[in-house]
Amino acid sequence: MATVLTVWGSPSATSRTGVVARHVAARLAADGHDVSTLAVRDLPAQALLHADFADPHLRAALARVAEADALVIASPVYKAAYSGVLKTFLDVLPQFALRGKEILPVLTGGTPAHVLALDYALRPVLTSLGADHVAQGWFVHERFVSVEGGIEAQSGIEARGGIDAQSGPDAQDGITAQVGITAAQVGIKALGGIEAEGIAPLDELADAFSARLRRLAAVA
Amino acid sequence: MATVLTVWGSPSATSRTGVVARHVAARLAADGHDVSTLAVRDLPAQALLHADFADPHLRAALARVAEADALVIASPVYKAAYSGVLKTFLDVLPQFALRGKEILPVLTGGTPAHVLALDYALRPVLTSLGADHVAQGWFVHERFVSVEGGIEAQSGIEARGGIDAQSGPDAQDGITAQVGITAAQVGIKALGGIEAEGIAPLDELADAFSARLRRLAAVA
Amino acid sequence: MATVLTVWGSPSATSRTGVVARHVAARLAADGHDVSTLAVRDLPAQALLHADFADPHLRAALARVAEADALVIASPVYKAAYSGVLKTFLDVLPQFALRGKEILPVLTGGTPAHVLALDYALRPVLTSLGADHVAQGWFVHERFVSVEGGIEAQSGIEARGGIDAQSGPDAQDGITAQVGITAAQVGIKALGGIEAEGIAPLDELADAFSARLRRLAAVA
Amino acid sequence: MATVLTVWGSPSATSRTGVVARHVAARLAADGHDVSTLAVRDLPAQALLHADFADPHLRAALARVAEADALVIASPVYKAAYSGVLKTFLDVLPQFALRGKEILPVLTGGTPAHVLALDYALRPVLTSLGADHVAQGWFVHERFVSVEGGIEAQSGIEARGGIDAQSGPDAQDGITAQVGITAAQVGIKALGGIEAEGIAPLDELADAFSARLRRLAAVA
Repeated sequence: MATVLTVWGSPSATSRTGVVARHVAARLAADGHDVSTLAVRDLPAQALLHADFADPHLRAALARVAEADALVIASPVYKAAYSGVLKTFLDVLPQFALRGKEILPVLTGGTPAHVLALDYALRPVLTSLGADHVAQGWFVHERFVSVEGGIEAQSGIEARGGIDAQSGPDAQDGITAQVGITAAQVGIKALGGIEAEGIAPLDELADAFSARLRRLAAVA
Repeated sequence: MATVLTVWGSPSATSRTGVVARHVAARLAADGHDVSTLAVRDLPAQALLHADFADPHLRAALARVAEADALVIASPVYKAAYSGVLKTFLDVLPQFALRGKEILPVLTGGTPAHVLALDYALRPVLTSLGADHVAQGWFVHERFVSVEGGIEAQSGIEARGGIDAQSGPDAQDGITAQVGITAAQVGIKALGGIEAEGIAPLDELADAFSARLRRLAAVA
Repeated sequence: MATVLTVWGSPSATSRTGVVARHVAARLAADGHDVSTLAVRDLPAQALLHADFADPHLRAALARVAEADALVIASPVYKAAYSGVLKTFLDVLPQFALRGKEILPVLTGGTPAHVLALDYALRPVLTSLGADHVAQGWFVHERFVSVEGGIEAQSGIEARGGIDAQSGPDAQDGITAQVGITAAQVGIKALGGIEAEGIAPLDELADAFSARLRRLAAVA
Repeated sequence: MATVLTVWGSPSATSRTGVVARHVAARLAADGHDVSTLAVRDLPAQALLHADFADPHLRAALARVAEADALVIASPVYKAAYSGVLKTFLDVLPQFALRGKEILPVLTGGTPAHVLALDYALRPVLTSLGADHVAQGWFVHERFVSVEGGIEAQSGIEARGGIDAQSGPDAQDGITAQVGITAAQVGIKALGGIEAEGIAPLDELADAFSARLRRLAAVA
């Protein structure tokens, strides 16, 4: 079991990127990892923009990165690259903050024309942070993700049941508290229909990433 | 004469990027253009991070971009790319906000190993914004820029005198009001010694950019 | 009128990239420019791969680049970037071979997922060669280009008619001699139907590029 | 023990890239791996430029890639990117030719300003080929590599022994046969003095890469 931190950087609280990030987080959690999520937009905006390292919330966020064995890094594509919101957080990380860590990069976007932003924009930044391994990532087309569905699902009973079923007794500290997500909650209609096909490659990548983390844990 | 907006994105108020941005602004202003500067860090942080388009300061900043004929875009290099601070602002621009505009990109950084961030990271973003022309830019090594000097100079009498001397009678509206900068104020020790040599290529680029703006204005 | 060289780098003699390159060349020629094309694959392979500057064909090709006011640079996308064939030629150019020149970059590819190869892969190389201006380029999806049609058209009577119809009386000097192409010859079915729509944005870019070259010629 | 193929793409037979490639190969071989090298410039030039898959030498080269567990990919930096020579070979590989393989990328260049070509230019191409893992690579400054030294060393007696072994009768079996390299032969003066320091980071990366290959072999 690995400690995984999912960081997603979108200016919107109800973003498709967040939906996808929580979906991957849920999938990794379901496979036994200790997963939590960090929405950059929830950090104090001024501390982030001014790189105020005295800010306790920012320090706590940096500590979570330091403690993670692996990170899922998710961003929408804006202007043919990752979001500024995500980058403001990556910018305050120590120079080799990702050394010794495994990274799964994920982008969301409205046009397939932006797929290469993953390899030409995001990956070089993650590599410069010293990541041991940046896995083949995935670009999720927005049409496969329903934000509305997510919101509805979160208020539904099945979703709540999902939490309990998945996270178990000590879910209070750890995953549930911070993540508390299931596919139903996440609101990806992916549970049935064409959307599931749309993100099937991402699910495969997440599973491979999970298996890799297990192997690494076994070796260590 | 062209309307030029210099946008610089650094988390620090006393950044070398700001010094360089103001230096270029002063040089373009001295050549007769109507130049103003915009420090992204001075915008309301939360509005920027949450893309709150209702914020009046953000709207005013976007209007300044729309009104400019040309932009100087300056950023420090963090994690092998432009800063998140700069990108948060570029992200809230309309999709083709730079259409019909001329752009001069400038980066500052502590290692020459990051020079290509200009062409591989910043330029693609500016191009995606529809810029008519993104000039050959320049990477300024931090050792050529003194922040301390800048601060001292700004409080000194010579610097104040510099404003008057440079900007002349109608400096009140336009440049001085918004920019009010001279090389002395800017605090680039570049005025004498090795530092001037260090940024000489940038000065040449700025002059060529200025000449280009004059030509375009003459044609239009 | 400007001297334009269209360089295209594909390993195949009947490539869609060649069709597109000749289409752009024909369009610029029709607008009055002195256009010629250079297929990198027609250069002596060993001289190119071994950078044998003594080779007369290679020297002649380099001279054509030096004499051009502007270049159209076209490549298929292979492995998420420009072709090696094109790059072998760009590699033997002098360091700032494109200084003072205007460049129009064009890519062809089988998936829209590769669109950003233009701005993240090809453009940085052209910029590093010192190009004064690299215009907004275009990625042409292969489905808009018919190679077979091109071959047929070239041998067909309609195609010949196309030459006359399009290039008019003074087609003898200039274009025809060096290029001798029209849209009909080029074999882009784009002359009618969905394909024409597919490359309409490229046509617009080519026209804007042509207008720009005229303006520059007028100023000089 | 893993099967490693070192592919280097330089137009010159006596290139610094070749020296570095053989140095890494020797280091991996010394650690017990089955290493061979492939100089792209030794492949039939026309077959490569025209993507002639019927060529037996090209087919043999592709087979060597297919059989390798890991590849060292080395290139000089030309025009702010990998060489066209290297890319012509990568272009003829099947779409996911690097799937299941571990990659160590290495660049050589004359200016530190080109360091990022590794992460922004070469790595995206290797990733697009489906590589399981592209390790942190290294940019070797040319001043750390002496081609002349290499040539001298090769004319020395120990080197000749190696050379004979390589080109001679028993070239069929194993590393020596195919690679036949020692540090002396390789001609890196790196064995003593400042040059060794210059490539020490690359040596560390090669050792880590080697250890990784051993671990993977142990798991499999």
